[in-house]
Amino acid sequence: MAGSWAGSSAAGSNSARSLNGVTTPAHRWFAARTSVEEVEEGRVLAPKFDKDGLIPVVTTDYDSGEVLMVANMNAEALAKTIELGEAVYYSRSRRQLWHKGATSGLVQEVREILIDDDQDSVWLRVDVQGGASCHVGYRSCFYRSVPISPDGEKPLDLTFTMTEKVFDPKAVYGDTPNPTKL
Amino acid sequence: MAGSWAGSSAAGSNSARSLNGVTTPAHRWFAARTSVEEVEEGRVLAPKFDKDGLIPVVTTDYDSGEVLMVANMNAEALAKTIELGEAVYYSRSRRQLWHKGATSGLVQEVREILIDDDQDSVWLRVDVQGGASCHVGYRSCFYRSVPISPDGEKPLDLTFTMTEKVFDPKAVYGDTPNPTKL
Repeated sequence: MAGSWAGSSAAGSNSARSLNGVTTPAHRWFAARTSVEEVEEGRVLAPKFDKDGLIPVVTTDYDSGEVLMVANMNAEALAKTIELGEAVYYSRSRRQLWHKGATSGLVQEVREILIDDDQDSVWLRVDVQGGASCHVGYRSCFYRSVPISPDGEKPLDLTFTMTEKVFDPKAVYGDTPNPTKL
Repeated sequence: MAGSWAGSSAAGSNSARSLNGVTTPAHRWFAARTSVEEVEEGRVLAPKFDKDGLIPVVTTDYDSGEVLMVANMNAEALAKTIELGEAVYYSRSRRQLWHKGATSGLVQEVREILIDDDQDSVWLRVDVQGGASCHVGYRSCFYRSVPISPDGEKPLDLTFTMTEKVFDPKAVYGDTPNPTKL
C-alpha cells in the first residue's frame, strides 16, 4: 500500500536526505522539508544546509544587539549548539567543529536561537564571557566601516569604528595558526 | 626585469584575480588581498568572495538593532550597494541582482556598512521603508525561535516570537514566485 510506504520514507527517518541535489545530514531534531508553507509558517525545525552541508549563522550580543560575527555551522555544529547552549561553529579553514572559546576562553553562552523564514540561516543571541568575540582582539569582528556613495576610482578607505582591543591576541592564542586566509 | 612585471601583475589591475583557486571579480573600489595583516588591520577594502563569487551579508535595523535578514552579494551587488546607499543583494534562486524593495517598495536605506576582520562578510545597518523586511510579511525574517537544551528525540518545535504581520504578502507580491526553495 502506497500509504504505508510513504509513512516509512526518508521524511520520517534519520538517514541523510537528498532534495534538489542537496543532501541534508539528518538529525533527530531536524524535520524533513516537505512544503514551502510548512518551512515558512510551520512550527517545526527543518533547517536547510547548502551544497557544502553548511548554514550561515549571525551572532549578536544579547544585551547590546551588536553583531559580533558571521560564521557557519554544519548539522553537527547546529545540534551541538542547541544541546549545549554554547556556540559551536564549523571551521572551513580547519575543517572541523569549532567550539568557540575552547582556546581563548571567550565562550559564547546562547540565550536565544532564531531561524529565518526559509530556515537557511540562524541567528544566535549570546552572552560572551570576557566580552570579546574577534580573534584580532576587538569586541566584535566588525570594527571597520565602508564609505557610502564615495567618489573616485581607487580601492576604498575603511574607517575604524573601534579603537581599543579587549585582549591581546598573542597572549590568548600564542602560536595557534591565524584562521584568516587570503 | 622582475620588478616591473610584478608591478603590472593582476594584484594591481582591475581584471579578475585568482587566489587559492578563488577568482575574485575585481572592481575599482576593491583592493587585492595581499597579506593577512593588511586584510585584518589595514584601512583598505579587500573583500573576499567565495568559490561561487558570493559574500554573506547580515542586515540589521539601524534603530532597534534587530537582525532583519541574512543574504548574499556578488561583487556587483556590493559595489551597487556602496554606490546607491540602498541594499542590493544577489538572489541565488533567481540568479540575478536583487534590489531589495524593487517589487515590494520595502527599500532598505543603508546607514552604515561594516566589514569583518577577514573581510569575508558584510554587516548592513539600514532603515526600512514600510518597516518590514521579510517576504512572508513579518518585520524580520527571524520570527521563530529554537529551544535550547531540549529533551526528546523528535524534530524540535519552534516558538513564534512575532505574531503580527506588517503587510499582506499576497497584496504586495501578487503572483511573483515565492523565493523560498525546498
